[in-house]
Amino acid sequence: MAVYTEISDEDVRTFVAQYDLGDVISCKGIAEGVENSNFLLVTDRGPFILTLYEKRVNPADLPFFLGLMDHLAARGLSCPQPVAGRDGVALRELCDRPAVIVTFLAGMWPRRIQPEHCAQLGEGMARLHLAGDGFGLSRRNALSVDGWRPLFEASRARADEVKPGLADILATELDLLEASWPRDGLPAGIIHADLFPDNVFFKDRALSGLIDFYFACNDLLAYDVAICLNAWCFEADGAFNVTKARLLLDGYTRVRPLSAAERDALPLLARGSAMRFLLTRLYDWLNTPAGALVKRKDPLEYLHKLRFHQQIRTLNDYGL
Amino acid sequence: MAVYTEISDEDVRTFVAQYDLGDVISCKGIAEGVENSNFLLVTDRGPFILTLYEKRVNPADLPFFLGLMDHLAARGLSCPQPVAGRDGVALRELCDRPAVIVTFLAGMWPRRIQPEHCAQLGEGMARLHLAGDGFGLSRRNALSVDGWRPLFEASRARADEVKPGLADILATELDLLEASWPRDGLPAGIIHADLFPDNVFFKDRALSGLIDFYFACNDLLAYDVAICLNAWCFEADGAFNVTKARLLLDGYTRVRPLSAAERDALPLLARGSAMRFLLTRLYDWLNTPAGALVKRKDPLEYLHKLRFHQQIRTLNDYGL
Repeated sequence: MAVYTEISDEDVRTFVAQYDLGDVISCKGIAEGVENSNFLLVTDRGPFILTLYEKRVNPADLPFFLGLMDHLAARGLSCPQPVAGRDGVALRELCDRPAVIVTFLAGMWPRRIQPEHCAQLGEGMARLHLAGDGFGLSRRNALSVDGWRPLFEASRARADEVKPGLADILATELDLLEASWPRDGLPAGIIHADLFPDNVFFKDRALSGLIDFYFACNDLLAYDVAICLNAWCFEADGAFNVTKARLLLDGYTRVRPLSAAERDALPLLARGSAMRFLLTRLYDWLNTPAGALVKRKDPLEYLHKLRFHQQIRTLNDYGL
Repeated sequence: MAVYTEISDEDVRTFVAQYDLGDVISCKGIAEGVENSNFLLVTDRGPFILTLYEKRVNPADLPFFLGLMDHLAARGLSCPQPVAGRDGVALRELCDRPAVIVTFLAGMWPRRIQPEHCAQLGEGMARLHLAGDGFGLSRRNALSVDGWRPLFEASRARADEVKPGLADILATELDLLEASWPRDGLPAGIIHADLFPDNVFFKDRALSGLIDFYFACNDLLAYDVAICLNAWCFEADGAFNVTKARLLLDGYTRVRPLSAAERDALPLLARGSAMRFLLTRLYDWLNTPAGALVKRKDPLEYLHKLRFHQQIRTLNDYGL
């Protein structure tokens, strides 16, 4: 659920009057997303998405995110595009929050991942990586290796509440990741950094676009692939689905070949990606108030994935 | 928040293929409503609402609810209408739940109630009462006076957890209401029974329609008015707004005059209505699991309203 802010009909009408979008027919909160408040806005000109940025988004990052969507769309990637008001400005304020209207992307995210989804995801992600080239702004990935220790320290004392021994497991893994993380030498660029199934839309079985660029940043391109291996290629019972992983990599390399160094680094990047989601979920698990209208995500799902990748040395060990 | 059931894109596509609605462009859960799962479904033919009925709705009541929406719309009332599939059937099944697609109603519910809203609500409610005449099915109001004692008994032992002394207050009030409730002699018919602001849409400052008929039933027409006095005419600080109440009654009587007996009964009906929402909120307060993704509504808001009405003998005492 993701409506933290209630907007009155008058506020919406006054806000939309600044655009060339005709009359407001309806505006309903959408029960998706976690970080922001999202509304499906229907006007005379069709459906749009109205997003109010809540406090977890740094307003200073918004020009990066919005500019990136414009840049990617101009390069032919299917993604929401910020809509400018009559004054040419897209980023405004509504209910004391930064707010933006973006174009509506047809399609739905896949609730049941099929192998074919993974093949198309791979292609789409590679297209995103190519399209990001030449974007003029940059943003550090605050949730990459240098960001993990502060997250760990903030959760360390209570980690064993979630699972006895978890703090020790994390401490050991963090030492290893910090020592061995490939900081140079691999191709870097714009990555999505949160390409989970709910951010990838399909329509009539074809990938129709990517959404939610609010974790996008500059980082190793192969790290995005590693995130997707974790997010798309494990079954609900914890099994790693090699068919899905193979299709994902094949789809990716059809558009952007992976170098030998990137392939070699993937098992370690997958461990790091598992660590990243394990740590943020653990932090949220320990710090989400009991009454919050947010479904906490299980950190242990990512502990399981981390342990799986710890057994892996090369892509061959995955069966890839 | 109101999405209890997740639907896959394939399920939606297969479901919508039974209708003459073109291709599915999008289907997003709506963060409104409490009882059912609601989705905003966009197809080639425009927006629709897809509702999956969750377990709090009795499937045996669905022909009443859907038939009523058809009946009211045919009589000129603006409300959602069930959409029939190619086989002429509107009520189907999706994800093991009864499911229906209804037409999309333009407008938004008012987050900040203005006096003018109340005037239009009064008119709209009276139109609903007139339009309900002649509807062939009937449904008992399970949440009227006869339903309150079982609800009270289910919460009695723990009522004082919410407020010390609450169980005694409720017991005394219930005795009085059961003894004095006007069971005959007042005009009866179809009532909405849940005409809270989130079920009344306005567009460009004009009432654009009523939604959510899932508490509709046969009962005293003036009881619907009493529910609205409670739901629309108190300010957030607990003050009764006589201007709003007067506009509500004026609006109503412009379309359907209230008899002297109905006017005399209104203070008691308002007490009863306050009791009804106090009891259901109390029950939900005591029985909603801590982790449920539902915002519990404060029962004490309705204790305050009940106490206010207890001071009233005639409409004059309200200032009406």
